[in-house]
Amino acid sequence: MRIECIAIGTELLTTGRLDTNSLWIADRLSRMGLSLHRKSVVGDDLEDMQTLFREASLRSDLVICTGGLGPTFDDLTKETWAEVLEDPLVEDPRVREDILDFYRARQHIPPESNFKQAMVPSQAQALRNGAGTAPGIYWPGTRSRPQCRVLLLPGVPLEMKQLWEQQFEPLLAPLAQQQVLTLRVVVGSTAESALDERTRPLRARHAQLSWTILASITHVELVARSSDPAALELARQDLQTLLGPDLVCAGNGSIEETVLDLLRSRGESLAVAESVTGGLIAARLTAIPGASQVFLGSAVAYSAPGKLSLLELPEELIQTHGTVSEATTRAMAEAVRRRLGSTWGLATTGNAGPTEDPLGPGALGTVFMAVAGPQNTKSIHYTFPGARSDIQSRTAAWGMDLLRRSLL
Amino acid sequence: MRIECIAIGTELLTTGRLDTNSLWIADRLSRMGLSLHRKSVVGDDLEDMQTLFREASLRSDLVICTGGLGPTFDDLTKETWAEVLEDPLVEDPRVREDILDFYRARQHIPPESNFKQAMVPSQAQALRNGAGTAPGIYWPGTRSRPQCRVLLLPGVPLEMKQLWEQQFEPLLAPLAQQQVLTLRVVVGSTAESALDERTRPLRARHAQLSWTILASITHVELVARSSDPAALELARQDLQTLLGPDLVCAGNGSIEETVLDLLRSRGESLAVAESVTGGLIAARLTAIPGASQVFLGSAVAYSAPGKLSLLELPEELIQTHGTVSEATTRAMAEAVRRRLGSTWGLATTGNAGPTEDPLGPGALGTVFMAVAGPQNTKSIHYTFPGARSDIQSRTAAWGMDLLRRSLL
Repeated sequence: MRIECIAIGTELLTTGRLDTNSLWIADRLSRMGLSLHRKSVVGDDLEDMQTLFREASLRSDLVICTGGLGPTFDDLTKETWAEVLEDPLVEDPRVREDILDFYRARQHIPPESNFKQAMVPSQAQALRNGAGTAPGIYWPGTRSRPQCRVLLLPGVPLEMKQLWEQQFEPLLAPLAQQQVLTLRVVVGSTAESALDERTRPLRARHAQLSWTILASITHVELVARSSDPAALELARQDLQTLLGPDLVCAGNGSIEETVLDLLRSRGESLAVAESVTGGLIAARLTAIPGASQVFLGSAVAYSAPGKLSLLELPEELIQTHGTVSEATTRAMAEAVRRRLGSTWGLATTGNAGPTEDPLGPGALGTVFMAVAGPQNTKSIHYTFPGARSDIQSRTAAWGMDLLRRSLL
Repeated sequence: MRIECIAIGTELLTTGRLDTNSLWIADRLSRMGLSLHRKSVVGDDLEDMQTLFREASLRSDLVICTGGLGPTFDDLTKETWAEVLEDPLVEDPRVREDILDFYRARQHIPPESNFKQAMVPSQAQALRNGAGTAPGIYWPGTRSRPQCRVLLLPGVPLEMKQLWEQQFEPLLAPLAQQQVLTLRVVVGSTAESALDERTRPLRARHAQLSWTILASITHVELVARSSDPAALELARQDLQTLLGPDLVCAGNGSIEETVLDLLRSRGESLAVAESVTGGLIAARLTAIPGASQVFLGSAVAYSAPGKLSLLELPEELIQTHGTVSEATTRAMAEAVRRRLGSTWGLATTGNAGPTEDPLGPGALGTVFMAVAGPQNTKSIHYTFPGARSDIQSRTAAWGMDLLRRSLL
């Protein structure tokens, strides 16, 4: 079943506003095993709408439109669709009554323009709007396009969602497919192309699943979809064997959540000392509810005085090795662990640029990470590409991943 | 000139991810007096892409695509366009060299799959990507579609933006319409509806400008557009008079940048002690290049031990007043200022929820902020609505704004 979504409104084509309704609709569809093939945004322009609606009516089995059902002159979604589907508008007395009721309850008299909303195409049904005056419109197929269902919903998210849940979902239910399940695994400290090559044979072996690789600055996600839970479970097991400690988690998790869960299950705690990441590790950890059970704090030592006074590092250390160095990073991890009395200490230093960064002699993109634990201290160094924010963000993620590997 | 934007990626059709690149592109186009007629999203599906690209090439003067230029099997944007435009791919030795250079600089050997990115359609030009390995591709018109320009950009925002600014904008400039200028002012610690009412008469007085109010969790922006620089300058002056200290900055700035600029111009420095914001203030400040000149560090004291050992607060203080209290927040601001030897100390405490948050007795959403300076210590308390991340984010912004007001 080919489904597409169209958002109508000139404001969605300029800067500052996004069509978020389609995200919610995609989620509701996926629960019924249905998915979107295309999304479009078009302005309140008659000709642009006509072209797009005509194309959509010829290629899709269900077209879901949001917006342009209001009472003003530039709300033309319904009128344009009625024209494209060659279905005349006639007043629906039940909708007219709903509009009057809506205003009566608010002790107002409806403006005449509102009654435009009582006009319903002859082959469509009006879906009652519990939160506003614009009814939804649903054509289950028309004489001119028997194969194409068209649903028009208001653009106001609250009204759109109520109409969908209460009125449209029951109509859609008989068309629902077998549910599509998703397997998502998060992989840490790995480049997208490396993961692509490494998992190629595995994906070929599980070719009946639909695979995607999603890379971000902080991690890579491998996603498989299928309606067969057993096939997904087999793929998950094979991935676990193949990736070993590189696999952070399967499901909805993240590196941060995995680290906090591991610490919690072991009854252990963490303190962080951040130079190049400037508080980002602390901010990512404390974004997660319940982080305070295991995360004690972070010394964001963004300057030599910060390192000396918050962490009480010896001045000779920094003079000898510089702030961006393996020795200083290891000393920071050990110092913050000791000062806060935590099981683990994690530290970062580096140069995220631009050149004026006075953190030390490291070349742009050079970063050091260290994990101090009950047994020993491990450290590692990388050179990361990209802008300042990319270097900071990746160091925060790969640093937490280094800790995760130490916890395994 | 009819321009449309197409984002490619199955992940943009399912829940959770939105195409935000098109917002940025719409903004850049609007500065050149150009606007989008349509936006679409399509998955990594060969047939869906073929249909959409064919339609777009017939109806638009410029088609801007983002995504699907990566090295993996499901990146097919370039290949599909080459087919639609009947333009064969040939290896570009210059791009191959760029890819080798990119990996050499990182002391890695490129995976073979990366060289797929060196294939460039014969009638197109490759636009050098300064931040990644996928070049942009630009057809200024082809033999099969002479009227249609097609631009392919990577989906990674950083790479997309760099390519646009450095490589594509000069090519687009001759086609630009009359330039539209923008006045943007940032307003701190203010609700959207309050700013709407307060600026209504001013906006009516400058009705020849086109006005928008954009609210986020952290601040409100008031934007005016016009092709008349004098009219914008008059509006800016009136806004300055009307808003006084509530106006954070005009132009591209932010609260963080304004605070750092004010400190720098006064030769002063800042240290932060964060409880409820968990490192967010430090992370926002250190995201800005050059922050280290004035920002010394942050003690992220996310636990009582954190407060006691990083800030050396007296245990009785916390026992008497609790961690979420005006007295503790003031003591934190003063302690971090003293320990790091900074001109100013900024501190936050609060309860961002959910209920298990052990930070203290404060009701959900209660936050305290304090600024300790050379003369005295100021503090303020709010109750913020919303989710955990909203409360943390707003506290970080309003805390920095409290410091900004103290610096005026």
